[in-house]
Amino acid sequence: MEQIQDICTAYGASKKIYEKGSIHDIEVGMREVQLTDTVIEGKRHSNGTIRLYDTSGVYTDPDVKIDLKKGLPRLRDKWLSKRDDLQKLDSFTSVYSKLRLNDPELEALRFQPQNLPYKAKPGRQITQMALAKQGIITPEMEYVAIRENLTRQDKETSYITPEFVRSEVAAGRAVIPSNPNHPEAEPMIIGSKFLVKINTNIGNSALSSDIEKEVEKSVWSSRWGGDTLMDLSTGKHIHETREWIIRNCPVPMGSVPIYQALEKVDGKAEDLTWEIFKDTLIEQCEQGVDYFTIHAGLLQKHIPYAAKRLTGIVSRGGSIMAKWITAHNQENFLFTHFEEICELLAQYDVAISIGDGLRPGSIHDANDQAQFGELETMGQLTEVAWKHNVQVLIEGPGHVPMHKIKENMEKQQQCCHNAPFYTLGPLTTDIAPGYDHITSAIGAAMIGWFGTAMLCYVTPKEHLGLPNKEDVRNGIMAYKIAAHAADIAKGHPSAMERDNALSKARFEFRWNDQFNLSLDPERAREYYGAEKIHGTPFCTMCGPNFCAMRISREVSGAGKIE
Amino acid sequence: MEQIQDICTAYGASKKIYEKGSIHDIEVGMREVQLTDTVIEGKRHSNGTIRLYDTSGVYTDPDVKIDLKKGLPRLRDKWLSKRDDLQKLDSFTSVYSKLRLNDPELEALRFQPQNLPYKAKPGRQITQMALAKQGIITPEMEYVAIRENLTRQDKETSYITPEFVRSEVAAGRAVIPSNPNHPEAEPMIIGSKFLVKINTNIGNSALSSDIEKEVEKSVWSSRWGGDTLMDLSTGKHIHETREWIIRNCPVPMGSVPIYQALEKVDGKAEDLTWEIFKDTLIEQCEQGVDYFTIHAGLLQKHIPYAAKRLTGIVSRGGSIMAKWITAHNQENFLFTHFEEICELLAQYDVAISIGDGLRPGSIHDANDQAQFGELETMGQLTEVAWKHNVQVLIEGPGHVPMHKIKENMEKQQQCCHNAPFYTLGPLTTDIAPGYDHITSAIGAAMIGWFGTAMLCYVTPKEHLGLPNKEDVRNGIMAYKIAAHAADIAKGHPSAMERDNALSKARFEFRWNDQFNLSLDPERAREYYGAEKIHGTPFCTMCGPNFCAMRISREVSGAGKIE
Repeated sequence: MEQIQDICTAYGASKKIYEKGSIHDIEVGMREVQLTDTVIEGKRHSNGTIRLYDTSGVYTDPDVKIDLKKGLPRLRDKWLSKRDDLQKLDSFTSVYSKLRLNDPELEALRFQPQNLPYKAKPGRQITQMALAKQGIITPEMEYVAIRENLTRQDKETSYITPEFVRSEVAAGRAVIPSNPNHPEAEPMIIGSKFLVKINTNIGNSALSSDIEKEVEKSVWSSRWGGDTLMDLSTGKHIHETREWIIRNCPVPMGSVPIYQALEKVDGKAEDLTWEIFKDTLIEQCEQGVDYFTIHAGLLQKHIPYAAKRLTGIVSRGGSIMAKWITAHNQENFLFTHFEEICELLAQYDVAISIGDGLRPGSIHDANDQAQFGELETMGQLTEVAWKHNVQVLIEGPGHVPMHKIKENMEKQQQCCHNAPFYTLGPLTTDIAPGYDHITSAIGAAMIGWFGTAMLCYVTPKEHLGLPNKEDVRNGIMAYKIAAHAADIAKGHPSAMERDNALSKARFEFRWNDQFNLSLDPERAREYYGAEKIHGTPFCTMCGPNFCAMRISREVSGAGKIE
Repeated sequence: MEQIQDICTAYGASKKIYEKGSIHDIEVGMREVQLTDTVIEGKRHSNGTIRLYDTSGVYTDPDVKIDLKKGLPRLRDKWLSKRDDLQKLDSFTSVYSKLRLNDPELEALRFQPQNLPYKAKPGRQITQMALAKQGIITPEMEYVAIRENLTRQDKETSYITPEFVRSEVAAGRAVIPSNPNHPEAEPMIIGSKFLVKINTNIGNSALSSDIEKEVEKSVWSSRWGGDTLMDLSTGKHIHETREWIIRNCPVPMGSVPIYQALEKVDGKAEDLTWEIFKDTLIEQCEQGVDYFTIHAGLLQKHIPYAAKRLTGIVSRGGSIMAKWITAHNQENFLFTHFEEICELLAQYDVAISIGDGLRPGSIHDANDQAQFGELETMGQLTEVAWKHNVQVLIEGPGHVPMHKIKENMEKQQQCCHNAPFYTLGPLTTDIAPGYDHITSAIGAAMIGWFGTAMLCYVTPKEHLGLPNKEDVRNGIMAYKIAAHAADIAKGHPSAMERDNALSKARFEFRWNDQFNLSLDPERAREYYGAEKIHGTPFCTMCGPNFCAMRISREVSGAGKIE
């Protein structure tokens, strides 16, 4: 895993800094960019520093020695150990976990050491939502408040206070995924009043990929700005792969437990049972997955609507459940056991991301009866989950043309009582395989502006194959752009500071500052570098006679940049 | 120029077909894709063919032999020769053109043969707008009507009739760029009631590029879907480069004449004169440029507003004119001579694209007094141009956050009397140099939906350097996506047929049909090909046990695909 070292280097002109909490003993990591001075006609003007939200964890902290075999430092252990509502179990609860742990053939693959799992003490309500409802500001809440504000200079007027975070979590309008069994993750918040987040997917399939590659991709993802990570593995060694990823993952991790449950019954959807599924939930709760996609909203009555579609059911989880329902002629067991699911998840503070098994897979099928029928059920399930203090995300489409995007947001808010919306794109046209990071970034930016809290990224390989590292980077960049454009449009108070600083640098020919402030400094530098002219106040686009910005400075009397 | 041959090959499973006109003796080129059959449980269902709008001209017609040294066939010569309002001059009018023609040192660079220019007969009104106002349906109008309708099956209910085209052109709501001196170009229309078009820019600068590369880029651009092409060259041999490009360009070409005029005064904006500019206009009118960007709306009174900005003036033409105005303390000579400009352009049916010299160069400066002040002047100029029957486009920004995009469209429609809007993006954030094809595709899709008629593409190299071929391709793809997403959203009657056909192919595992219908079949095939599994009803993303679409077919009883 030597390549990890390359990924871990800090960004140019950035240093990792930590801001202390005032309520709790916490230190919030962020990235500080040192800007160069502006020199106008001999006079030097400082541009100071700018703080940027940073998802890369300690991977970009040169003071921390990274050892993937040991995993990341367990940041939250200190906070968790002070809590009286948590217990540490003597052993893993899941039957499957025990089987895997005791299989000597897996010895070489297994992550060491195995930490024993945290769980709620009997009768205790441990979730962030439960604590928020009790008026408690947790370390996690203060952490995210500091993180969300960091680019603002005027802390006085900041509206993202720890108390504001608490109230949003209590109301179900925001989620802080925070399974105590993933103490390596830095807390973050998903809600429409906060910065729009992006999720990236990784995962091996039966046909390709391996553990090492997946861990590398997860580090890669958080380096470029992935706020959460879903492990969608469907091949062999899902359990072991996940353990490696979680132990080295500085952001919350999600999964779709039905994928692994299906592996356990050799891919036969009709053989799935509640017992196998439940054991899978426990297995993953105790490993540290922070949120589960569960397709509990797809009911028997919705299936005939899907049969009318151009592209039927395109959600993997949705199609598995539809097959189970049809084979048994029974209601979706994820729906009928939903209360039990919530009781279980509440003991590990695993958030539920209610999966949209009937999301449209083509522009033709957008906003149809199947999709909106399921959404109504998802709203009912939201109320059930909240009753158990389980934090809820609502998953959304998919393929939606621009003029139908707003209706998605409005219907979701109405049906699901303002639980955070978490959408895949949406893709605004079907005709560009190979470029679906772009078809979907358009929809993602718009729906983010309208209120979607988290955007699930799409890579250029969508519909065609599994993404490689470069695809992951391109997908993340498209989604960082969409999320940031949405933050500006919805008026997040700290969003525009970075744009303004970069534009000022651009207008003053401070090339390095422009690069260092950009989402992908390496790419910007590479594109510029091909034909660079260092130290000259113009670039290769215009040449010396035509530089608009140089002439503009002259005309406006802004002074000559040196 | 051997590489041109590679570019010219037809797309897979496509053939070039021609549809005849019913009013005029015209043949409209289009691309027809042959789809494979769907085979469900032994039964074969034909999917027929689908016709696609095609900007590649005869480059993708295997029956036409391409010889860049001879130029493209002069498609419109036959139509033009029948007109009694045109004359063919005995020699070129521009002083500069004559100088270049008589310079023996340019012999090797010069395109041969030189065709003598067309011009209006004295006192005749020859523009498409003038003819439209007289109730005449020109061959160009019928041509674009057929082109716009081609993906529709139900010709009966088609709303894009030649008469409809005529009425839109007469009202100034649409433009058909059609300088008779560029008879190689296939007519196309720019207007909000038609398919959203995209423009690509090419051009050498003093620092790089050469004639051969530029011609190759222009062919490349039209192959991937560029509807028009602007030559923004600023280096040596602008005149000769332009001639080569026009003679081989199957789409209308635009230019910014002030760039060349500035070269003629060695880059000193203050030395520009109306006489030099006018001679440049004549030079380019007689070469065959179809539309000129002219920054006539930037007035002396607007300059103080620009001085208040974060990023001043970022339009090259705008900054040149601002410098001239400031140096002379006089009103913009493009404004004071605007009537003469229109009189001249009307004689060659060159459309005017009124340049937005004060477009915002950062999110911070969007929708400010400088920008909207200039827009009002542009509206006044529109009325002047229309009085002379000169077709008008209005150029727009730039950098605009999502929540301020709609205001741009509304203000433009109101100030400029529904003349077609032609925007650069807009970019929805400043922080992603290296990815500005994406930051701007978001804004472009939205403003296209709101009514913008043509989108000027942005490549990944924007702000950083000159694009290479791959950058041009990526920029075009981002903009074809934006334009198509806009066509769907605004309800263009033929837009969704392609999405539906592609999605049906996807759901039926007709991989080749999916690729052939996509915007970039080569890229899609390449991404899929890496790990392809031919003839199996699943793909590398999910593997055999997890294919949602296969399971969906089973559940819905849609039958097994073979």
